[in-house]
Amino acid sequence: MHSIGLDIGGTKIAGALVDELGTIVAERRVATPAGDSALLEDSVVEMVKQLDAEAAAIGDRVAAVGVAIPGFIDAAQSVVYYTPNLPWRHEPMREKLETRLGLPIVIENDANAAGWAEFRFGAARLVSDMVMLTIGTGVGGAIVHDDTLFRGGFGAAAELGHLRLVPGGLPCGCGARGCIEQYGSGRALLRMANEVADAGGIGLPLAEARAETGVLTGDQVSTLLQAGDAGALAALRRLGRHLGEACASLAAVLDPQMFVFGGGVAQAGELMLEPIRAAFFENLPARGYHPEPEFRIAELVNDAGVVGAADLARHHFPSAGDPTAFSAHG
Amino acid sequence: MHSIGLDIGGTKIAGALVDELGTIVAERRVATPAGDSALLEDSVVEMVKQLDAEAAAIGDRVAAVGVAIPGFIDAAQSVVYYTPNLPWRHEPMREKLETRLGLPIVIENDANAAGWAEFRFGAARLVSDMVMLTIGTGVGGAIVHDDTLFRGGFGAAAELGHLRLVPGGLPCGCGARGCIEQYGSGRALLRMANEVADAGGIGLPLAEARAETGVLTGDQVSTLLQAGDAGALAALRRLGRHLGEACASLAAVLDPQMFVFGGGVAQAGELMLEPIRAAFFENLPARGYHPEPEFRIAELVNDAGVVGAADLARHHFPSAGDPTAFSAHG
Repeated sequence: MHSIGLDIGGTKIAGALVDELGTIVAERRVATPAGDSALLEDSVVEMVKQLDAEAAAIGDRVAAVGVAIPGFIDAAQSVVYYTPNLPWRHEPMREKLETRLGLPIVIENDANAAGWAEFRFGAARLVSDMVMLTIGTGVGGAIVHDDTLFRGGFGAAAELGHLRLVPGGLPCGCGARGCIEQYGSGRALLRMANEVADAGGIGLPLAEARAETGVLTGDQVSTLLQAGDAGALAALRRLGRHLGEACASLAAVLDPQMFVFGGGVAQAGELMLEPIRAAFFENLPARGYHPEPEFRIAELVNDAGVVGAADLARHHFPSAGDPTAFSAHG
Repeated sequence: MHSIGLDIGGTKIAGALVDELGTIVAERRVATPAGDSALLEDSVVEMVKQLDAEAAAIGDRVAAVGVAIPGFIDAAQSVVYYTPNLPWRHEPMREKLETRLGLPIVIENDANAAGWAEFRFGAARLVSDMVMLTIGTGVGGAIVHDDTLFRGGFGAAAELGHLRLVPGGLPCGCGARGCIEQYGSGRALLRMANEVADAGGIGLPLAEARAETGVLTGDQVSTLLQAGDAGALAALRRLGRHLGEACASLAAVLDPQMFVFGGGVAQAGELMLEPIRAAFFENLPARGYHPEPEFRIAELVNDAGVVGAADLARHHFPSAGDPTAFSAHG
């Protein structure tokens, strides 16, 4: 039996029909009507109906639907408290969607969904305890402990982008200051790359790229990184060191077996992991007195959100049929 | 059926026979032979035998023994990796004690044991998710999530004293710098009180107390705090603000329903909680978008370690009889 996963982003909604092993059987993608709550809900309903029809077409039915959302969800995974880039505020989304669709629905934070996918089918599939940092425009987080997604007492745990890295540091969109999101995100990488460009010297290729387009873009930085440009690498090293320092604090709290890095920036791969590992081991408390975690790049990349949402929905409703169910606390 | 809990500190070993409701039926206390591994083991064995005899005397038998240790324990709760203030290094303590005593044994980190006691029988007994900070000479930590003690992938999670608060800050005994232990512990409070004393003005009573004894003591600071001395209160406020800032980061990661503060310094009570709450809410990411945690002082104080160790041992061996057993993951 299949389940459906949706991943609602600020610009697009991705959806997929997913089997028990995390394999995508059918996919859909539409632009997000980000400014209109009712239209957004309609888009979600329409996409689920299409994927449900796909399941029927291959003679199967849908066990459950998981919807990944960039925002805070309540502990019962029913109400969307707040989405910074979408219009939902205290929306009883689970109830609304179940009424309109007649299918079991689970709402999940998008970084949690992506982390769960990496734990079940990706880079962390062989460990029981992992921490994932999703390095996109911002920094998302997910924690898996003892084979279970860690949601916290109110459902909003693993907001790892808002661990404070620098007291009195850069202001963050969350209202606090010095959050790792301001030092370890894609946006932070662009700021650092601009600083390197401004400094001249090894920053000249970055400055030239910026002059071409007016504003330095992530794609330009990525291209220069792949070409081994010293300026772009210097910016990435700064980013990686900040992330490694944050991981040292996270290790003191969570002691995971593995850190996984996802999101667009993590496509830099080993170039990013190297400064992360170096800063981590320099800052790790009580180094040498217990086993040390691994550092890996996420494997599911673009599909992690939909695959994770679909699998979490299946785990949430084990009676809906999950042959691999284990410790389904939901 | 009773269980036995031991709490091995740097200066004394406390032990108790504890019933299913966390009530202490009999107690023992001896000095810790801190410099000699074999003598230390003998003291533990002797104390368990005495408490076992106490159980027999009241017609009961002992279900299991929990031993709380100030150090790192492996994930299987069998091997003591490292104890900073005791001679144990990679000691297979569980096996050794089981062989000598013929009773089911569990080894546990002491801050975890204290936190578990507060969760089961103390300040956090009505919540499912809590974080405890034990403010003694250092800063210990415990995390309970979903009614279960959070041990991490290698068994050394919740070393909350080693969350980094200040980049490049004060060196810590763990080898890193800027750990909360250097800003929120009893030792830190004494340092801050000495700084206030050195500054004159409101620091004069602290300076006078120090002149009497040569070195400022925790008891002196505590006496001045209870008397409402402005200098001692200023030092405590600094300590509290640091702890509140650390809790804001911990909330982003763990999202607990409650923070509990134990250890000697926490006896300052509301005087300490007030600056903690103030700094917490000033630094909390995304304040206002989800429910907020409570802040409480621990209730079991001196007995938390032995009661928690005894109860964890009972949970670890549910067949040994626990009428209130629930989610015993061990």
